[in-house]
Amino acid sequence: MSTPLPDGQTVFVINPNSTQRVTDGIDAAMAPLRMAGGPAIECLSLQSGPPGIQTQHDVESVALPLASLARSLEARAGAFVIACFSDPGLFAVREAVKAPVLGIMESGILTALTLGQRFGVIAILDASIPRHLRAYGAMGVQSRLAGELAIGLNVTELSQYERTLERMTEVGRRLCDDKGADVIVMGCAGMAVYREPLQQALGMPVVEPSQAAAAMAIGRIKMNWHGA
Amino acid sequence: MSTPLPDGQTVFVINPNSTQRVTDGIDAAMAPLRMAGGPAIECLSLQSGPPGIQTQHDVESVALPLASLARSLEARAGAFVIACFSDPGLFAVREAVKAPVLGIMESGILTALTLGQRFGVIAILDASIPRHLRAYGAMGVQSRLAGELAIGLNVTELSQYERTLERMTEVGRRLCDDKGADVIVMGCAGMAVYREPLQQALGMPVVEPSQAAAAMAIGRIKMNWHGA
Amino acid sequence: MSTPLPDGQTVFVINPNSTQRVTDGIDAAMAPLRMAGGPAIECLSLQSGPPGIQTQHDVESVALPLASLARSLEARAGAFVIACFSDPGLFAVREAVKAPVLGIMESGILTALTLGQRFGVIAILDASIPRHLRAYGAMGVQSRLAGELAIGLNVTELSQYERTLERMTEVGRRLCDDKGADVIVMGCAGMAVYREPLQQALGMPVVEPSQAAAAMAIGRIKMNWHGA
Amino acid sequence: MSTPLPDGQTVFVINPNSTQRVTDGIDAAMAPLRMAGGPAIECLSLQSGPPGIQTQHDVESVALPLASLARSLEARAGAFVIACFSDPGLFAVREAVKAPVLGIMESGILTALTLGQRFGVIAILDASIPRHLRAYGAMGVQSRLAGELAIGLNVTELSQYERTLERMTEVGRRLCDDKGADVIVMGCAGMAVYREPLQQALGMPVVEPSQAAAAMAIGRIKMNWHGA
Amino acid sequence: MSTPLPDGQTVFVINPNSTQRVTDGIDAAMAPLRMAGGPAIECLSLQSGPPGIQTQHDVESVALPLASLARSLEARAGAFVIACFSDPGLFAVREAVKAPVLGIMESGILTALTLGQRFGVIAILDASIPRHLRAYGAMGVQSRLAGELAIGLNVTELSQYERTLERMTEVGRRLCDDKGADVIVMGCAGMAVYREPLQQALGMPVVEPSQAAAAMAIGRIKMNWHGA
Amino acid sequence: MSTPLPDGQTVFVINPNSTQRVTDGIDAAMAPLRMAGGPAIECLSLQSGPPGIQTQHDVESVALPLASLARSLEARAGAFVIACFSDPGLFAVREAVKAPVLGIMESGILTALTLGQRFGVIAILDASIPRHLRAYGAMGVQSRLAGELAIGLNVTELSQYERTLERMTEVGRRLCDDKGADVIVMGCAGMAVYREPLQQALGMPVVEPSQAAAAMAIGRIKMNWHGA
Repeated sequence: MSTPLPDGQTVFVINPNSTQRVTDGIDAAMAPLRMAGGPAIECLSLQSGPPGIQTQHDVESVALPLASLARSLEARAGAFVIACFSDPGLFAVREAVKAPVLGIMESGILTALTLGQRFGVIAILDASIPRHLRAYGAMGVQSRLAGELAIGLNVTELSQYERTLERMTEVGRRLCDDKGADVIVMGCAGMAVYREPLQQALGMPVVEPSQAAAAMAIGRIKMNWHGA
Repeated sequence: MSTPLPDGQTVFVINPNSTQRVTDGIDAAMAPLRMAGGPAIECLSLQSGPPGIQTQHDVESVALPLASLARSLEARAGAFVIACFSDPGLFAVREAVKAPVLGIMESGILTALTLGQRFGVIAILDASIPRHLRAYGAMGVQSRLAGELAIGLNVTELSQYERTLERMTEVGRRLCDDKGADVIVMGCAGMAVYREPLQQALGMPVVEPSQAAAAMAIGRIKMNWHGA
Repeated sequence: MSTPLPDGQTVFVINPNSTQRVTDGIDAAMAPLRMAGGPAIECLSLQSGPPGIQTQHDVESVALPLASLARSLEARAGAFVIACFSDPGLFAVREAVKAPVLGIMESGILTALTLGQRFGVIAILDASIPRHLRAYGAMGVQSRLAGELAIGLNVTELSQYERTLERMTEVGRRLCDDKGADVIVMGCAGMAVYREPLQQALGMPVVEPSQAAAAMAIGRIKMNWHGA
Repeated sequence: MSTPLPDGQTVFVINPNSTQRVTDGIDAAMAPLRMAGGPAIECLSLQSGPPGIQTQHDVESVALPLASLARSLEARAGAFVIACFSDPGLFAVREAVKAPVLGIMESGILTALTLGQRFGVIAILDASIPRHLRAYGAMGVQSRLAGELAIGLNVTELSQYERTLERMTEVGRRLCDDKGADVIVMGCAGMAVYREPLQQALGMPVVEPSQAAAAMAIGRIKMNWHGA
Repeated sequence: MSTPLPDGQTVFVINPNSTQRVTDGIDAAMAPLRMAGGPAIECLSLQSGPPGIQTQHDVESVALPLASLARSLEARAGAFVIACFSDPGLFAVREAVKAPVLGIMESGILTALTLGQRFGVIAILDASIPRHLRAYGAMGVQSRLAGELAIGLNVTELSQYERTLERMTEVGRRLCDDKGADVIVMGCAGMAVYREPLQQALGMPVVEPSQAAAAMAIGRIKMNWHGA
Repeated sequence: MSTPLPDGQTVFVINPNSTQRVTDGIDAAMAPLRMAGGPAIECLSLQSGPPGIQTQHDVESVALPLASLARSLEARAGAFVIACFSDPGLFAVREAVKAPVLGIMESGILTALTLGQRFGVIAILDASIPRHLRAYGAMGVQSRLAGELAIGLNVTELSQYERTLERMTEVGRRLCDDKGADVIVMGCAGMAVYREPLQQALGMPVVEPSQAAAAMAIGRIKMNWHGA
């Protein structure tokens, strides 16, 4: 990302949790989207955020801090990505800044709609599913949803690559075989490393939502489009 | 777009009609999306296509020629965009090539879903609206549709900039005031020159669908995602 | 509400804004729902809330304070009502306390579904409508929505009873005549005084959402039902 | 229910079948909703009704008798509840009387919508499910339906408490595990005794629809709201 | 309808009201559907029915009499058509007899779905519209509904051909221009005489529902298909 | 079909593939629909069509040839049926000719909507299901879809009657038991011979779509209705 960029040309991908390891995972996933002549893509943790976004309390707790952080970055910002699958604070950030703001859930799903007819979502936690379903309803895309299932692993298990991939594969297969999914959306940020092997294992397209959102953000910067 | 690109790195934006002036308009609209390190964006007319895509016959007539053309370009292609608002042959082209293929209708609408809650579409011809509605139904996004109205200008009128902008503005305002739209999608290709003034006149975001599709295509190339 | 009640028998109706006059209006509207042997109904302002809930920022700013306030009242609480038509923090409060929690938007709409086939909503501000539409989508009840229109009065006008009733009547009539509504939901709290005259003027049922929610809360307390 | 009530202050809960044992079960379930200053809640059997409402013929046969009975009670009535999960005659009774009329199916489902994101219904008979699905469609709430399954017990088995609870639990679990329900509606009247143990067994909220309807009716009386 | 037919080969079109003039209008409309070698089409009034089906009471009052009448005709019946746009007793009659049973509302709408993308309905009475909307919801076809509007003529006006055609044309035009309908369904039986002139006046297809239902019934007899 | 018919009185059922055996199967299935005074029903293969319609390419390849063929037959045509479950070229043929045009998918499903509440579809190939789902979305009937599953037999297996019936029965049972279907649509043409035994085996109505379409076409000819 060598050469200095003019103001208003950076995509800020904000991880609403404070776990730098997650932000690092997101950052690594951005590599293919960094091009000479394209916008810089900068990944940040929300320092005041919780270690992870698991509960509704977590979701609510980051909305205004995300808006403040976005506002503080506005001079340099071309676009913002909220990098958590619950799209916390999405509409608050949109209201706070002029630049386009994309949530990874909405971007992941909108991208999936171009890759298959019925999308399945692999969630981490069962408890997040009702929240996600509300968001799909607000988006008006439920008729395209095949189903959402959680891998249900604890923190220790989630740190084990093989165990996690195995569970994701099992759940993805059930979404395909029992629910009729023909494209999968990963229902979380920071797990881009699993995308390719999961796609191989399942034999159907898998969308990593942070990449989907950043990809959309690049074009949005270039065209300078944002909501009213 | 100076430096030579590796194979498989070009976005081919194919205008399914044979009117070079339309292709030129699309090509001009691509300017902001061309980045030094980004994919080349090449705009082509379908030589065998009709002068415009107006009837269902026109739509059907270009499906397989588009698939053939895409296949012939496949070695150099990173992605394809079908640049007609009826998304003719979209699924045939997807079947024909490995690279990602995006329609401008679907991309325009998916983009609009991130810019407002209810999208309105400005069509050229009344007769296209049922065809578009079928496509929105297939996409499963009708609950987000505020309405679609046609400007209903003849070819002579469409060649008059002021007259056309005036009608688009009238129709856009009716979509907003009577139908509740808060984001507008232009229901045709090759009219990107109207986007900015229309957005100014209406005071709400206006999506030009060829740009929306090409923007999504860039990211798709970089991530190398395509349907199963 | 004379006699002392056992713990866990009070309906707390929380106005998420800090304007006591609004809370007083809500409190007055609760009169018919106060019965001997029934739960106490206590109306509170959220002291830390903004003077009104108008923006997305306002909505987000009260979510966790509402959850905290609810938790602090939990020993005495039988149920909670969030008395703002954006249902701010609804799911955060549900997560925070064991007692049932009802939003006035959801309760107002669910009640309207038993009074007519297509509900119209009279909003105060145009800018709130997209937020409301997202909520109707999340609830899955859009096919019953006839439309939502704002009265668009400024603060001075809103303080004038006749002017406000006149505008509500105009908007209500348009919802009926142009959009096909056969039941009206008032899209705000604290305006219960208009319900009866508006219903008379329109000749169709009008739902005041704070009353709708408190009414549902009473039964919920008595049956001791709450979410998982 | 000691002190005499003014006219128009009684909730009449009408069991459309003539089986007094069912009416007694409904009556017992009303206990928590009877408050000193609240409306009386009187449960009646429709004497001319069939022993149970199982077929479409049964449903149709009670519609006008219910309307007549309601009209005959109108002087004392504050509200009516039709206590059969097919909501027989709901719109005929609404047309016949001025007082509010609630069906237990609609009330049970509307209540469930505030307790979970996707409701499952436990029916008694497979043959009733298409009729219920038509009603959910008319209500416009199908996108919130996880699924409906019948316990399929015969009359003898239904009279065995343990057997019935066991089957309800099995079916409820399948609605949760296979269909994604997070709240259950009991698809019949007169079985309130199973609600609490079923909720315990399933670990998710269970709605008994007669109670849900009577609870809504109490508020409706107090506010004196009814359809146009 | 000269030659004697085997048993089970007659389409019975039952007008659920007792007004012979309406039945005569239906009967006249059947002429084009009577073919040598095809089923006989016999039109009957329900003698015990009200003079017209206007209220919910009227609808309910005919359900079981229709079932009885159908059963009494079963030996000679190949199919039944319920010739009232509220499809009264449709599911009761289906349950009562083995032969296929079609409602004119459902058949009119299903036919319209093959003639245009968005259907408009011309009702006689405003008060019937909510009942019709419930039925469209139960059918799951609301997303294809452009709108429904009533002509609102009294009995005297309805007896005046020119006045009635004029109002139908006005309402049909509003359904087209304001609501986006491209096919019209006549929301009543016995007015087939207006179909052709209305179609001419509106320049779009107009479906007369009794004819639509009888046409479907003929095929159903020939194929001997009926519900389970 | 002995006696000569006037022009414009023949139903042309066009098999878009060139396999005469399939056309023969369709032709045999038309027998019950041929009546002395009814329209002739003539079944044709599209000579230029592929041996089967399996891919999107196949679907697109026949659209304009179907339109040409229909136009060439127009003088003698009363109606057209496109006899392939993907309804290829349906809207192109409608545009090309004045006579009514019916697709077997739409007709099969519309017919199923009168025979049960939730339809299941038995497809031949998994790969066709997304295409079918898009069509159901365009039709706006997805909320009535229980599910679609493919039998997944190869060509050799498909030529074995017992093996095919066995697989259809298995898949039909799964659509009923797991997905909740109460009516089945056969998702292909030319297999009418399986309809009756499949219906017997499943105990629920089974719709053969070519027959459903031809049945609707007969009435359409007689009434002379077609799209605008």
